[in-house]
Amino acid sequence: MRFSEEYFSKYIQGVTGSAIRDIFKLLGKPGMISFAGGNPSNRALEPEVVRGLTGEAIDRYGASILQYGPTDGLPGLREQTAKYLRESAGVHCSADNILPVQGSSQAFDLLLKALINPGDAILVESPTFLGAIQAMRIYGAKLIPMPTDEEGVIVSAAEELVKEHHPKLMYVIPTFQNPTGRTLSLERRKALAALAAKYGFVIAEDDPYRDLRYEGEALPSISSFDEEGWVVYMSSYSKYISPGLRVGAAAVPDARLLRKMVIGKQSTDVHSPLLTQAIVELYMEKNLLPGHLARIRGEYREQLNAMLDGFTELPEGTAHTLPQGGLFVWAELPEGMDALPALNRAVERGVAFVPGTHFYPEGGHENTLRLNFSMQEPADIREGMARLGAALRD
Amino acid sequence: MRFSEEYFSKYIQGVTGSAIRDIFKLLGKPGMISFAGGNPSNRALEPEVVRGLTGEAIDRYGASILQYGPTDGLPGLREQTAKYLRESAGVHCSADNILPVQGSSQAFDLLLKALINPGDAILVESPTFLGAIQAMRIYGAKLIPMPTDEEGVIVSAAEELVKEHHPKLMYVIPTFQNPTGRTLSLERRKALAALAAKYGFVIAEDDPYRDLRYEGEALPSISSFDEEGWVVYMSSYSKYISPGLRVGAAAVPDARLLRKMVIGKQSTDVHSPLLTQAIVELYMEKNLLPGHLARIRGEYREQLNAMLDGFTELPEGTAHTLPQGGLFVWAELPEGMDALPALNRAVERGVAFVPGTHFYPEGGHENTLRLNFSMQEPADIREGMARLGAALRD
Repeated sequence: MRFSEEYFSKYIQGVTGSAIRDIFKLLGKPGMISFAGGNPSNRALEPEVVRGLTGEAIDRYGASILQYGPTDGLPGLREQTAKYLRESAGVHCSADNILPVQGSSQAFDLLLKALINPGDAILVESPTFLGAIQAMRIYGAKLIPMPTDEEGVIVSAAEELVKEHHPKLMYVIPTFQNPTGRTLSLERRKALAALAAKYGFVIAEDDPYRDLRYEGEALPSISSFDEEGWVVYMSSYSKYISPGLRVGAAAVPDARLLRKMVIGKQSTDVHSPLLTQAIVELYMEKNLLPGHLARIRGEYREQLNAMLDGFTELPEGTAHTLPQGGLFVWAELPEGMDALPALNRAVERGVAFVPGTHFYPEGGHENTLRLNFSMQEPADIREGMARLGAALRD
Repeated sequence: MRFSEEYFSKYIQGVTGSAIRDIFKLLGKPGMISFAGGNPSNRALEPEVVRGLTGEAIDRYGASILQYGPTDGLPGLREQTAKYLRESAGVHCSADNILPVQGSSQAFDLLLKALINPGDAILVESPTFLGAIQAMRIYGAKLIPMPTDEEGVIVSAAEELVKEHHPKLMYVIPTFQNPTGRTLSLERRKALAALAAKYGFVIAEDDPYRDLRYEGEALPSISSFDEEGWVVYMSSYSKYISPGLRVGAAAVPDARLLRKMVIGKQSTDVHSPLLTQAIVELYMEKNLLPGHLARIRGEYREQLNAMLDGFTELPEGTAHTLPQGGLFVWAELPEGMDALPALNRAVERGVAFVPGTHFYPEGGHENTLRLNFSMQEPADIREGMARLGAALRD
């Protein structure tokens, strides 16, 4: 072993990688019903559509699709994305505000690169997306958990934390949150935008699930209430068209901040592949998204309902969220139960999930778990919930 | 203007972006002959081949090509790349050592993320690739320039700098270097590998041009002389197949270092697009590269010769390198001439280049310039050199 841990950079020391990706290694067993991932259903993917759009992209762009391209993205994709984010989420933006990136993960990474010095405070929901936790730790940020309830971040508590910690950044997933499936209420969206303007900090609004809504009314984004340019809206085509294409976008109202993110991207990967950008540009230009979303929403709703029904199989006293969309349901087992050892028993019985403790920057909450429903047929979801109930009672 | 420069992270403050990308904005003028880029020739790109390979990739992988994929890359591309790097460059590697990335720029970014704390010393050639200079500055590294001559890094001088600065990393472009076109000699390749082992530092060997050789014998990589695992070999398909696909790879001998780079990539972009990886996998599997390289080498050699002939047009006393391959020729104007104001005059006359000072981390060397020949036909190269000569004499 040549490299001791001390040889590595300070903040990557001790970061051992995504717990979810380790759980994935358990899933090779035949017959395993996995609630552990966060992938779209294979049936929601359209390889034949992509085949056709690739041909059209090559017809349109010729050899230039294979050349170096602009760091700030393919102009047509920037236009299409600006239009989509204005219409879908009320984001105040034009093509000039849009930075196409490799999934919204890269938008967040570039925002951290532009803003964060080691020790800077970032306010996050408790619990929150574990990929984001890892990204913030690698930049040496101090993560400050904000208390949440059924309607998301509790704004009065968040304001106290802002006063105490003077954060540069707040990270929020407002719609069908990962991991809880909860949605930030309209009033709180307005209140968070006002808080950012009052105290002067950036909100990273990570909103990749918003158009996977199966009931209820869509809410305007936090960004739509931002009059002063404090909210960076991060979106992704991963959950709507394809995660494997790695196309997402940030809408950045402030031109100087956008420029710093572009500088970060220049030295990170020069630019995103043009072919994948052009495929999404054409997909949006041809207005294929609304019909596709209508189809996949119907299927996801059935899968969600099967999972919610299956909670009767879980130990008495288990609480769970009632998401109106997205890919996840969050469960809280009776006090004293521990999801970590239960995972091994569950895998033996042929079902997998992610222990909720991984989503808390401060740890603890061992009686919580995240369940994904998008990868399994309704019948398998019912069987999986029965197996999970048995494993939890073992 | 909401964000003052002080709001941004410490090391991105003052980084104003790639000087080359600013020069590109001058190039819209009709009839401009640009020696400023580093792109492959449009005639070296094969959109019809890519169209066919995309179809085959979809036939092979189906919907899974659009799903989430492994952070450490598509297994078939890792296999093909390991085989290629063993055969082409003598790199000791198997698929397990290969990390597919977004061009070799991302390989370097992930290596910096894994290793560098602010203030750490990195030894670099003087001059060196300006994208790499920007990347190192964003990580707060201290750049130590190593003197070079016609055969590349002067090893005895490098050893003195190693003793003085205790670098964690040395960054070297050994073959047809960007910006000079020079190639590190065989003896010095061996000597640098020995130096890394003697003092214990990582060499980032950035070698994206090696198979664009138009004369002379190919040399083994520095990595081929590395018995202990200190050399990270960074390669790219950008200059051989397509820069727009953004597919490159790092060969990382040490498993712990590779793991840290994978962790960095998890939070940077989760993984590279599967479709672009599969296109390159099939390209290599079908062994299309040797014939393609043979064809483009013949064209590039003619372009290089046209440029070398054109130096008779430049002011007396101008020295230049005699590259055996790659995309660049480096020129040194007579002492006292300044390439920066000359660029404006050149652009007025319809020719562009990159002033050499941008490639020196320590600045200075205002009488140097980098000339690229791959984007222009031989007749245009001759005309461009005549215009450049006139502009320099103005």
